[in-house]
Amino acid sequence: MEKPEKPCAPLTCPIVRSVRLIGDEWVLLVLRALFRGAHRFDELQKQTGAATNILTNRLGRLVEGGLVVKSPYQERPVRYKYELSPSGVALFPVVMELMRWGDQWLPCENAPPAMLLHTECGKLSRPGQQCTECGGALTPRNIELVESEEGAGLQRSAA
Amino acid sequence: MEKPEKPCAPLTCPIVRSVRLIGDEWVLLVLRALFRGAHRFDELQKQTGAATNILTNRLGRLVEGGLVVKSPYQERPVRYKYELSPSGVALFPVVMELMRWGDQWLPCENAPPAMLLHTECGKLSRPGQQCTECGGALTPRNIELVESEEGAGLQRSAA
Repeated sequence: MEKPEKPCAPLTCPIVRSVRLIGDEWVLLVLRALFRGAHRFDELQKQTGAATNILTNRLGRLVEGGLVVKSPYQERPVRYKYELSPSGVALFPVVMELMRWGDQWLPCENAPPAMLLHTECGKLSRPGQQCTECGGALTPRNIELVESEEGAGLQRSAA
Repeated sequence: MEKPEKPCAPLTCPIVRSVRLIGDEWVLLVLRALFRGAHRFDELQKQTGAATNILTNRLGRLVEGGLVVKSPYQERPVRYKYELSPSGVALFPVVMELMRWGDQWLPCENAPPAMLLHTECGKLSRPGQQCTECGGALTPRNIELVESEEGAGLQRSAA
């Protein structure tokens, strides 16, 4: 007996569906900038270093995929802002685990590990689901992604 | 004053370094098969559905990146097996979070959500860091990735 047709059979694995949408360097850099609070095109461009066409393309993909909501913040001329949707915000644990893994297993000789400022305890935490200092849950609302250099600076000044 | 040269500056973000290595559909399908216990080339090919050249390429990339260890299991003719290294095993939380996110936000009309058999409690869990049935930690050693259809079947027979 023939199996019933499964039009999205190659995509039945949710890992594959996820990576089709976010498995791209620029997409992840845009998401990181959005998690850091950037909303306007020029802010996103500054934080990602992406060329205009690349940023337009990746934002379009994220809006189409429902991860980012685009809405006008100014009328004449019309200007848009970009914000994470609930599904975009829900990527936070994925981003944290990717960051933690990269820091542990692909360390960069020329940069210290990435650090997050956990605003609830005021200390710098390694990426993850919990603050490595106080053990509290890390969420997009209670952390600030600190540039490696800044992070190192903060650590040095705290030491 | 000029900043010191940072040869891997564009890669200072650990998220980007991670995604450069694993942000690829086939790579993730190979990793999934390895987490499921496949070791031989033919097993990996069967579980991923990848063409020989694609599988060879992705295994090469994973071995080069240190995520997979290739070693002979037979002498004449020489045959190799592929196993996750510690850094490969450490990707487990990333894979779980990608799976959880994909199931929640990119559901497939033609397949039930992915389920994992948590061998410690014997029940089917949703993907994640903890078993959704007993709350115990999910690890590569205590779960079996169940095909969607099998998972649905197990759930039906358990109901």
